[in-house]
Amino acid sequence: MERKNHLHSQAFLLLAATAFLALGFTIGRNAGEITPISIEAAADLVGLSFSPAEKDSMISALNTQRDNFEILRKTKLENSVAPALIFNPLPQGFYPNQDQKTYDWGLPVTVELPEKESDIAYLPVNQLAVLIKNRKITSEQLTKIYLDRIKTYADTLQCLITLLESPALEKARAMDQELAAGKYRGPLHGIPYGIKDLLSVKGTKTTWGATPYKDQSFDETATVVQKLDDAGGVLIGKFTMGALAMGDIWYGGVTKNPWNLNQGSSGSSAGSSSAVSAGLIPFALGTETLGSIVSPSTRNGVTGLRPTYGRVSKNGAMALSWSMDKIGPISRSVLDNAIVLSVLNGKDVKDASTISAAFNYSAKNDVKKLKVGYFKAFFEGDRASKNDQKVLEVLKAQGIELHPVDLKTSINPGPLVNMLLVEAAAAFDELTRLNLDDQLVAQGKNSWPNIFRAARFIPAVEYVQMSRQRSVLIEEMHELMSQYDVIVTPSFAGQQLQITNLTGHPALCMPNGFSANGSPTSITLLANLFEEEKLIMLGRLIQENTDWQAQRPPMFNK
Amino acid sequence: MERKNHLHSQAFLLLAATAFLALGFTIGRNAGEITPISIEAAADLVGLSFSPAEKDSMISALNTQRDNFEILRKTKLENSVAPALIFNPLPQGFYPNQDQKTYDWGLPVTVELPEKESDIAYLPVNQLAVLIKNRKITSEQLTKIYLDRIKTYADTLQCLITLLESPALEKARAMDQELAAGKYRGPLHGIPYGIKDLLSVKGTKTTWGATPYKDQSFDETATVVQKLDDAGGVLIGKFTMGALAMGDIWYGGVTKNPWNLNQGSSGSSAGSSSAVSAGLIPFALGTETLGSIVSPSTRNGVTGLRPTYGRVSKNGAMALSWSMDKIGPISRSVLDNAIVLSVLNGKDVKDASTISAAFNYSAKNDVKKLKVGYFKAFFEGDRASKNDQKVLEVLKAQGIELHPVDLKTSINPGPLVNMLLVEAAAAFDELTRLNLDDQLVAQGKNSWPNIFRAARFIPAVEYVQMSRQRSVLIEEMHELMSQYDVIVTPSFAGQQLQITNLTGHPALCMPNGFSANGSPTSITLLANLFEEEKLIMLGRLIQENTDWQAQRPPMFNK
Repeated sequence: MERKNHLHSQAFLLLAATAFLALGFTIGRNAGEITPISIEAAADLVGLSFSPAEKDSMISALNTQRDNFEILRKTKLENSVAPALIFNPLPQGFYPNQDQKTYDWGLPVTVELPEKESDIAYLPVNQLAVLIKNRKITSEQLTKIYLDRIKTYADTLQCLITLLESPALEKARAMDQELAAGKYRGPLHGIPYGIKDLLSVKGTKTTWGATPYKDQSFDETATVVQKLDDAGGVLIGKFTMGALAMGDIWYGGVTKNPWNLNQGSSGSSAGSSSAVSAGLIPFALGTETLGSIVSPSTRNGVTGLRPTYGRVSKNGAMALSWSMDKIGPISRSVLDNAIVLSVLNGKDVKDASTISAAFNYSAKNDVKKLKVGYFKAFFEGDRASKNDQKVLEVLKAQGIELHPVDLKTSINPGPLVNMLLVEAAAAFDELTRLNLDDQLVAQGKNSWPNIFRAARFIPAVEYVQMSRQRSVLIEEMHELMSQYDVIVTPSFAGQQLQITNLTGHPALCMPNGFSANGSPTSITLLANLFEEEKLIMLGRLIQENTDWQAQRPPMFNK
Repeated sequence: MERKNHLHSQAFLLLAATAFLALGFTIGRNAGEITPISIEAAADLVGLSFSPAEKDSMISALNTQRDNFEILRKTKLENSVAPALIFNPLPQGFYPNQDQKTYDWGLPVTVELPEKESDIAYLPVNQLAVLIKNRKITSEQLTKIYLDRIKTYADTLQCLITLLESPALEKARAMDQELAAGKYRGPLHGIPYGIKDLLSVKGTKTTWGATPYKDQSFDETATVVQKLDDAGGVLIGKFTMGALAMGDIWYGGVTKNPWNLNQGSSGSSAGSSSAVSAGLIPFALGTETLGSIVSPSTRNGVTGLRPTYGRVSKNGAMALSWSMDKIGPISRSVLDNAIVLSVLNGKDVKDASTISAAFNYSAKNDVKKLKVGYFKAFFEGDRASKNDQKVLEVLKAQGIELHPVDLKTSINPGPLVNMLLVEAAAAFDELTRLNLDDQLVAQGKNSWPNIFRAARFIPAVEYVQMSRQRSVLIEEMHELMSQYDVIVTPSFAGQQLQITNLTGHPALCMPNGFSANGSPTSITLLANLFEEEKLIMLGRLIQENTDWQAQRPPMFNK
């Protein structure tokens, strides 16, 4: 009994005491009895096995745990409450550069105003900015062009949730007045834009594309929208997204690809990409957890930038996966994305996952000095794409030396993607438990409701193990990525998309031609953490020497 | 079918692709078939229920998940690999002070060397430092006194794992030579000390107190030990700990309380506390996850400081719970703990959870200016302790105004402690899965093996929800703690110990008399994050006006 006496004196008993205190609550629960047979079944579900004596011994602890879960579930958590454990993408000893230099976008002094409104609508931000600055067009005129186009085309594309016509016109006029008074805020001054409807804007509804939230509104405006507003941007509309950030099916329909209306726009930044592609807005904000900027940018033939995890605040954005969500720009020009990123960039006291880092793009920097690699295996063999190979040829023709790179990690990223499922299932815990998920349109086996339910059976221990393997993956990828300035890769080959979304590396996805069915294809550029300026340099070189991005979907080029 | 076609175009399918890629591995597993009945049992274990159709739908996803776990488990992770998700104790907008000032310990100019060796051994570090600096005793002489005492008493107390006699003597002589040459490193110059045997030291074994690891060794020395070494400290031995940081039972026995050899020392910083109490070392390092400094400091009548989470690097320490583990000093004087903390403090590139913060203790600061609260309810009623009330009287007598404080949070901390269990079960994943846990001495229902097994059934979704509720708890506690400089509390009343270990607040635990059975009791001082200097100020006032800490266990006062 000596041992028992000693146990009584131990710190750990505090834990038991905690559990008993927790039990002080009255719990109305109809859960069945926990038995060795039910433990056997539950263990088998996660690939574990225990001896009869072990199962027997754990019954009381399992009852305590279950009671604790009931207590936990009595506390309602808003989606905006983030975990106290925060994803850290930084490899050991990696410090982001804090020395922010002045931007040099290399914009032309003058731009000629096209005659046709569609030609104006399809201009990139970096030319619209010059037109506005030079007062060749007013923000109000420009905003009206886009409003007209949205009214004409948005229903066809099923890409719009909320049109902000009068606030947009009001803001546009204010920007025109400021400019007349000699105040110029920078290249986004007076530029209309759209956002994915998972970003809250005070005074609007924020639907997350999903039936249970279609009348939801928040009192606070997302940090990124506030920043674009401060930079002079004119928010013109909130665009569709696949419900709860998956795919292109939302509560009101299916968002379309302007290049092929028989096709969905892909997602989940569905409306943002579709609208930019159809010239309804010059740029939009999207988000990516695992492909939700890259995939619709590809499908709709636009240019998407997924920033380094932590560079852009997620305050005011719907949380799907706290450790993987990223917000980034979608536009029709690499340079436009750089301009937008310069505004979004920065630590935010309201998002503890943000990391301060310089973004030192300058058009004066010499792109020829970049050390460029490419994932060789993905450009070879039967499954290689001619469009992808063409990008390498363009780069070589521009005098860029290409170094073959092998994408190899000791960690298999596949199972680690379960972290996304766990976090999403936690973010929408009540949706599952209260059966509100029945209201979602998509109800297949690969849709959220079923995925959320299945994710309830991922054990916390395995989640922590995934998180630890992710640390190893981060170090291994840093070892690889730090050897190159930019790595060129097919957007969907191998596991690069999964890996870089898990490690938080930035990606630039841009059109590189068309597939047999006439839909656009894309190439992706990768860089090491917080080195987006290198993506912009190389991406700009490609866009200046090709016309892939310049193509317009014929039906929307009127 | 349109919807189905659209699904094919979605980013999320990448996830499915990932899973299938993962399945490309050959998996040899004998797990049984997943059926609606097994899902029912598993769901019931965690207090969830699903309809027959829902259970049916999730079978394939559950099979994929289980296969993913098998892949995960093929990668062996060393205990030193930390998760990529890191606990962040900082409330929104809280920035630790970075302005580190010079320390002023307020040490006397001279100290008289006692005649009796036991009187020397029981001197606090802050007096030993003066003796060494003034060359009234050499580090070698002092080290030999402690070596002798360890040899005499350690077996009785079952508190020692590894004696480092010759390296200690070598270091002591080197410190004496340095001093003779005019180099003085600071108050730890030449001071012997001990560490809990979960800190790795190159060239020694690091046993974690547990049979499966009793011959383990690491090539790297823990950052904290390296820092103490650099500060002139003389590491004299590695002391016992409850196996894997619970209690006082280790692979070789049960560590004893010097005040009552029929009692264990409590734990898990068992040997560190016992040895300091018996005058075998002037100070030691301990660790606390949930009471493992506070509890043995209380039992053995010594003074323990649990620093703010993130202040002290854990590199080289056994991980039990990455989000809750803290390393801190245990000594016989509040001021000694401050001196040690000044050396331990600081961000470490090898521990991503460390946070840079000043520790601005100065003996010149006016303790009377502190706003001191006390958790009123815990000092009142039948269960209140006279020893605790006495502390309040001492403070009042010193002119400290005491403000009544109510410890109330909307979050019940009890269930959140499951985060510890999850992380510990992950840290010792293989111990459970490979049945190595059978080698541990303690095998009761409240011992690690059973706890680890039961924790495998805590779902990841609930772990994330605990992490989110912990964020709320952090904000609520910050709201409370920021209103006071110090709050006085009984060490174990209410849920303060659980709460502050979850929120990362610092605690100073110090003797305040004895219980009926002759064992020491303690009082705890709390402060807001990174305000340890305030704990030191008030704690020092108490120790300068009482003789509780000055008592020595009679059997070891020879």
